Amino acid sequence: MQERVASFGFELKGQSGSARLGLLTTPHGVVRTPAFMPVGTVGTVKALYFDQVKAAGADIVLANTYHLMLRPGAERVARLGGLHTFMRWDGPILTDSGGFQVMSLSKIREMSEEGVRFRSHIDGSRHMLTPERAVDIQCLLGSDIQMQLDQCIELPAERREVERAMELSLRWAERAKRVFETRAAPGQALFGIVQGGTDEELRQRSADALVGMDFPGYAVGGLAVGEGQELMLRTLDGVLPRLPTTKPRYLMGVGTPSDLIKSVQRGVDMFDCVLPTRNGRHGLAFTWNGKVNLRNAIHAEDTSPLDPQSSCPAARDYSRAYLHHLIRSGEFLGAMLLSWVNTAFYQELMAAMRVAIAEDRFDAWAEETLSKIE
Amino acid sequence: MQERVASFGFELKGQSGSARLGLLTTPHGVVRTPAFMPVGTVGTVKALYFDQVKAAGADIVLANTYHLMLRPGAERVARLGGLHTFMRWDGPILTDSGGFQVMSLSKIREMSEEGVRFRSHIDGSRHMLTPERAVDIQCLLGSDIQMQLDQCIELPAERREVERAMELSLRWAERAKRVFETRAAPGQALFGIVQGGTDEELRQRSADALVGMDFPGYAVGGLAVGEGQELMLRTLDGVLPRLPTTKPRYLMGVGTPSDLIKSVQRGVDMFDCVLPTRNGRHGLAFTWNGKVNLRNAIHAEDTSPLDPQSSCPAARDYSRAYLHHLIRSGEFLGAMLLSWVNTAFYQELMAAMRVAIAEDRFDAWAEETLSKIE
Repeated sequence: MQERVASFGFELKGQSGSARLGLLTTPHGVVRTPAFMPVGTVGTVKALYFDQVKAAGADIVLANTYHLMLRPGAERVARLGGLHTFMRWDGPILTDSGGFQVMSLSKIREMSEEGVRFRSHIDGSRHMLTPERAVDIQCLLGSDIQMQLDQCIELPAERREVERAMELSLRWAERAKRVFETRAAPGQALFGIVQGGTDEELRQRSADALVGMDFPGYAVGGLAVGEGQELMLRTLDGVLPRLPTTKPRYLMGVGTPSDLIKSVQRGVDMFDCVLPTRNGRHGLAFTWNGKVNLRNAIHAEDTSPLDPQSSCPAARDYSRAYLHHLIRSGEFLGAMLLSWVNTAFYQELMAAMRVAIAEDRFDAWAEETLSKIE
Repeated sequence: MQERVASFGFELKGQSGSARLGLLTTPHGVVRTPAFMPVGTVGTVKALYFDQVKAAGADIVLANTYHLMLRPGAERVARLGGLHTFMRWDGPILTDSGGFQVMSLSKIREMSEEGVRFRSHIDGSRHMLTPERAVDIQCLLGSDIQMQLDQCIELPAERREVERAMELSLRWAERAKRVFETRAAPGQALFGIVQGGTDEELRQRSADALVGMDFPGYAVGGLAVGEGQELMLRTLDGVLPRLPTTKPRYLMGVGTPSDLIKSVQRGVDMFDCVLPTRNGRHGLAFTWNGKVNLRNAIHAEDTSPLDPQSSCPAARDYSRAYLHHLIRSGEFLGAMLLSWVNTAFYQELMAAMRVAIAEDRFDAWAEETLSKIE
């Protein structure tokens, strides 16, 4: 158990090129960065016990405001003692604002200056998400790190449309910050989100304006939505130098192991993505020798484990033949074991990056690792 | 780890009324009876790690010949080192013969004196199951206790039809025994299965004939298929006195906690059933205070656990509100936790029965327990 502190902080511990080693302090403990946050969408990292998530090396998890506000409801979570107590995770929690999922999951929605009005994808009930309500909900959940409500748009889009959404997101950032300062508990933090699509000038205007508002951390949103890795990295190259080196940078919804390595190389500190658990459920394992699709017949009589050196029992102790059988049979245990394998691999990957930064050999490590896993 | 012995045995350790306390010895260890065998259909107890099954107190698990012969295939399991190695369970395994599932799962089948020809419900491939092939498959799997192939029929049925199936099952028992004796590994056992529907005379003829063949254990099959508890118990009352007291009695596919208690009270030693895991996946928990349907809204804000006294972390450490949320959300963790709760409860129930028999107060214990859980 890490000591509980009622203040938020970020300390840079080392650097290797642009890659950064840091420590993020939250009311529920310390996060070693660069960090990958397993996604606990509705209050559970799918097919895993939180003990496994913790043992895999995760310091922090992400939960989705959109899902939790609809079910079981933010007020209900608060009455049940907050999200940490409800889902039995006593480490730091970051929550998104719900904006992205309103766009991707709710078919019926109406955007205005005020916020976004939408219907639940679960039961059709009507809801309104404003910058203020998003902060309220995240306060009710009790998350350590909140995200401002932003407007996510689908790419490609007209520049004018991207600009309009980016500017709306800036006005929402101000509103979020104002209400957050009156309502948040000590030590909780609110991050601003840089928007602007893949347009360098828009991204930089967004970043500069947010930095002017002085957030304790900055996220880069609206990437990894189909633009491709090259364009994503080029966008990061434009944005990251505008952000203060003293604050954590969080690249939202990213990504593959290669995405993580190349983004850390550019100075990103935090990530979240459903890839390790979603791919696990579909039979795809991440290993230090690349991806392994356990549905393939080649594994049917392979008694070797995925990785005899792994710290994860699921990767070390179970034969590929058994994993293949479980996945082909659609068994729970297949999803459980491979979500575990991938969650552990992502944490091993982050731990290896932190070591490479501490030893100031990140670029060499990255080159070598990318050649093995890609 | 229990010592490996290459012989099968059953020792009666105590009795309370007709309820029996015993020890079953197999090549993979000892089974305390009365015993409930969690069902690992295709080589996994659904939504559980085998470590949890073991820690819950299960000494033995059941696996389904029908499922495993179709996928991954018995020969493949043998090449992979046998079922114990394949699924990573080093305790005793009982396999059924496949007969029951051919009837319930394969839509296209043709019964003859020779055996049953059928098509796989997975891919339509053609297969033939004979008494000899069922033994062969179970030898390839390496199960500690095999079941003879029998013909299961749907009830209600004409007496003549029940009689015909029972007599065919007896001829198959002889054929199974003959081939088993030439092919089984030391210490493996083959059980005969008493058939005859709910007809007392047919059941007794079946039991007497099987006893004449001298099996090391006897199963009662074809019950708990919709005839109701009263008729099931009346049938047991007719059969059990015909079986030798020195051999274990196994009531196949049974049942609810009440079924188990009342059957143990009549002298049954072994059970298997999908109820704890299937009900768990559907949100129904078994506890010492009866069944709890976690889908019900009454649990939505209940911070109490299912059973603070339970030996099972899932019953003890998680709030009903969280379990309710997980089940309502269709999350893996809901199925995982409630399958765990129920598997542990069934083992606690068997352990309590064993104590009550050892202390020769089974009837009093049964009355008190039934009044709480029904």
